[in-house]
Amino acid sequence: MSLQDFIDDQPLIDHHCHFLIRSTAENREKRLAQVSTEADNDYPLEDTKNRAAWWGFQHEANKFAVDSTDPLRNMAPDEYRAYNHKIFAHYHFETLLIDTGFIPADPVLDLDETADLTGTTIRPIFRIETTAEKWLQKTANFEEWWQGLQTEAAQAKANGYVGFKSIAAYRFGLNLTEVSKAGAQKAFTEWQKANSTRLVSPVLIKYILWNLAPVLLKQGLPLQFHVGYGDADTDMYQGNPLLMRVFLEKWCKQGLKVVLLHCYPYHREAGYLASVFPNLYFDTSLIDPLGPTAVTKVLNEALELAPYSRYLFASDASTYPEMYGLAALKFKEALKDHFARLDFVPELQKKEWIKMICHENARKVYGL
Amino acid sequence: MSLQDFIDDQPLIDHHCHFLIRSTAENREKRLAQVSTEADNDYPLEDTKNRAAWWGFQHEANKFAVDSTDPLRNMAPDEYRAYNHKIFAHYHFETLLIDTGFIPADPVLDLDETADLTGTTIRPIFRIETTAEKWLQKTANFEEWWQGLQTEAAQAKANGYVGFKSIAAYRFGLNLTEVSKAGAQKAFTEWQKANSTRLVSPVLIKYILWNLAPVLLKQGLPLQFHVGYGDADTDMYQGNPLLMRVFLEKWCKQGLKVVLLHCYPYHREAGYLASVFPNLYFDTSLIDPLGPTAVTKVLNEALELAPYSRYLFASDASTYPEMYGLAALKFKEALKDHFARLDFVPELQKKEWIKMICHENARKVYGL
Amino acid sequence: MSLQDFIDDQPLIDHHCHFLIRSTAENREKRLAQVSTEADNDYPLEDTKNRAAWWGFQHEANKFAVDSTDPLRNMAPDEYRAYNHKIFAHYHFETLLIDTGFIPADPVLDLDETADLTGTTIRPIFRIETTAEKWLQKTANFEEWWQGLQTEAAQAKANGYVGFKSIAAYRFGLNLTEVSKAGAQKAFTEWQKANSTRLVSPVLIKYILWNLAPVLLKQGLPLQFHVGYGDADTDMYQGNPLLMRVFLEKWCKQGLKVVLLHCYPYHREAGYLASVFPNLYFDTSLIDPLGPTAVTKVLNEALELAPYSRYLFASDASTYPEMYGLAALKFKEALKDHFARLDFVPELQKKEWIKMICHENARKVYGL
Repeated sequence: MSLQDFIDDQPLIDHHCHFLIRSTAENREKRLAQVSTEADNDYPLEDTKNRAAWWGFQHEANKFAVDSTDPLRNMAPDEYRAYNHKIFAHYHFETLLIDTGFIPADPVLDLDETADLTGTTIRPIFRIETTAEKWLQKTANFEEWWQGLQTEAAQAKANGYVGFKSIAAYRFGLNLTEVSKAGAQKAFTEWQKANSTRLVSPVLIKYILWNLAPVLLKQGLPLQFHVGYGDADTDMYQGNPLLMRVFLEKWCKQGLKVVLLHCYPYHREAGYLASVFPNLYFDTSLIDPLGPTAVTKVLNEALELAPYSRYLFASDASTYPEMYGLAALKFKEALKDHFARLDFVPELQKKEWIKMICHENARKVYGL
Repeated sequence: MSLQDFIDDQPLIDHHCHFLIRSTAENREKRLAQVSTEADNDYPLEDTKNRAAWWGFQHEANKFAVDSTDPLRNMAPDEYRAYNHKIFAHYHFETLLIDTGFIPADPVLDLDETADLTGTTIRPIFRIETTAEKWLQKTANFEEWWQGLQTEAAQAKANGYVGFKSIAAYRFGLNLTEVSKAGAQKAFTEWQKANSTRLVSPVLIKYILWNLAPVLLKQGLPLQFHVGYGDADTDMYQGNPLLMRVFLEKWCKQGLKVVLLHCYPYHREAGYLASVFPNLYFDTSLIDPLGPTAVTKVLNEALELAPYSRYLFASDASTYPEMYGLAALKFKEALKDHFARLDFVPELQKKEWIKMICHENARKVYGL
Repeated sequence: MSLQDFIDDQPLIDHHCHFLIRSTAENREKRLAQVSTEADNDYPLEDTKNRAAWWGFQHEANKFAVDSTDPLRNMAPDEYRAYNHKIFAHYHFETLLIDTGFIPADPVLDLDETADLTGTTIRPIFRIETTAEKWLQKTANFEEWWQGLQTEAAQAKANGYVGFKSIAAYRFGLNLTEVSKAGAQKAFTEWQKANSTRLVSPVLIKYILWNLAPVLLKQGLPLQFHVGYGDADTDMYQGNPLLMRVFLEKWCKQGLKVVLLHCYPYHREAGYLASVFPNLYFDTSLIDPLGPTAVTKVLNEALELAPYSRYLFASDASTYPEMYGLAALKFKEALKDHFARLDFVPELQKKEWIKMICHENARKVYGL
């Protein structure tokens, strides 16, 4: 089988994505356009439609349209289910690991329902900051709060979670040094007094991550980090994964599996880190569906130094199946380009690496 | 019409460039070589001539030469005017927006004279720091100084200016947070006592920018920023546009049009910012004439995430017409490459985007 | 002669590389695999073998194998010498400048022996931090220590050294500002009291570099810096060459030749610096053998702004000749790509630039 066909046929484990929405959600065209960008909904829709991604989304919608005369119209529930099945099956999506922390309007929250809607296997990811915020509201002091959070984290695997995710990069950045318990207690008290339950204290987030790391390690579960590319709410200057060096030095070397998500425009830095730290994995998700002209270049740059055993497919898609589809389409095109150019390496070895990237690495990291 | 021909025929608005010089300026070859680099004039001319840009400049000089036996010789005024007309017309330059803050030796300062020399329409850009320095010398205290600067800025549109420019990145960087009036007053007093009228105080520059922003907004005029690539005098480490996040969050969201100039090597970061902030525009000028082997790659990277409605052509050229010409030549080549590769998008839409980049975006941003 | 053949035939001066090892070293396959990555030896060998570099190393081993049925077996001393000669001769290595600071296990330390093993000319590079550490152990106070270090540095040229190297980026970073003597004396006292002779004080390293600079200048010897890409022990966030601006402003402008090594992923930044500072040189070594899929792209990016008179070939190889060979192979492929695409420039000029990059620049910088 040619390398091209081999890539087309590979099953995909999408190790980082989000909830889909219901067929009954209104304004399908507008919702589809809005999810073709990381901009907030107050960003001009006209500018969003002047991006390549929007045309990629439309391309997928046209290709799989239930009604070719009006591909962007809303669908009845059974049409919508068939449409989802068609797209996820076409690209051989096998499993979706859903980050439960981001919830679009009109979501399909039930994982079994999502499995039925898409025809894939669904596994959830445990969101650390959201859970920490929930325990703030349920407890009276630092000790109780930490006990609650830690206990819930320790039961994650038993409760079906296959990994954890931190959005430290959305709250202050990735300079994740070790902090004292006294410092964390003080920060907790300030948080209790604050007007918002939103966890933004760098000290407290660092405390949580350093102290949950052994809890994850014990369960053999990986820790995902948002890195780089995100919406206007992330300070991308502080989202450089090179800032994580002290954390990686400590925890990856002890056996904690760490997964860097998105990474753009720091994907070369992420690839470098994967090439020198054990147990460090990464992807270039989000750029796949939202920057379709970039995907081949970004994948090639990501793999300049990284082992093929450390790079994973992910879409970071949500809302509608076109986003997952476009991500898979562009990602597989980029794989074809990369492996066609690759010198020195026999085809059999290339096929091993393609399998790793599409599903085997994810299977190993998340214990699927 | 083919996409190639369509691109060749597009009129160009060069929304960021500088003064040309007189035909009577001496040492045309040396002046031409020196402007083919951002290095100071004490940089070895031999190294400058070992750059691709110098050969690009010579290529333009040869192509349009009045005297093909000696393309780099000085020209008589009428020859020189015809030569300028030939180059600007060949690349369909329609309008030049001249940043009046940089003045080469032997300049053509008069804008009507520049219009006559080039056969284009000329509009001026108001330079903030230079004007602030002028008012230091004309006033006795902070209140008077601020009154003078603010009043002149408020009359900019009435006086024919189509935009403002800040070179904060040349003075300290782009970390443009809000500061107090008391802090600004203190910094002003120190500035008065200093030996130099050069404005370098971060506090004062931040104060000016945050407090002139409403004055610009009221006139509907955009604010340009030097970003990234510049001469040895800029600290490019502090010239990363991601540092501007707080400023953009505040002012772009209120409606201020902000334009990031040059951006290299932070053009991916600039494109990302344009994709999540309203009213944010950018270009990759300066690399066009000075890094001719880079132009296609840089344009493709710049457009990975940005809407086509936010990216503008500019040369950042000065001194001689060859620099404007080389910028246009390489930019149009890069556009051809980009749009030839672009998936999913119908040719009609591609043509709309090409028009936006070449002139429509500039017309809208600067109200031309 | 075609440009391709011309490039193939160019002699190479490898201005930054390390010691080879003995034929008697055990586990040749494992040693070869381990040197195909910057990871420490506790990094999983399996991941190392899932990198493109490992296959590039094997490709060289197969191409030049003494025993084609077992290309990775250990060789007898005379076989090993013939094998080394064959590889270094095939790629026209003429001279190796050996950084004496890194010593692999089973090294060939004697430079004459290395010359005999490889059939090339060998010249040594003086390692600053290692020498400073040696003098700590030999002296009782700051004045004696500084006297010893300075005197040894002043005799470097007389002792056959052709350049100096600093690994400041491995100890704290590249923000190399000027410090006071009093500060250095205080830092020295703390160093004396510390448990380790490892020099890590930023103050002391800065003091050494600013105060040895005139000593180097007087001998006309260049100063190399580790920049960017290195093993997990370097904080690459602090390894950005833009941080060196104050040092370059002071010393390059006074005539000190500075050479930035490796640079990836900051090679665009390094190229920019070379385009605006006199006496600044750089390479993209290490990526050549360890990131073989990256070499063409990285070379093209490095040369976007830099003069051809400022960019040098280097492998940063050590241990086995395959690493030097793979670096040369990929580097020459990248040169072919770059010069085939280069517009405007006559072939004769291209050949001049190719000679500069392959050997002439190094000859000039190191006074060979």
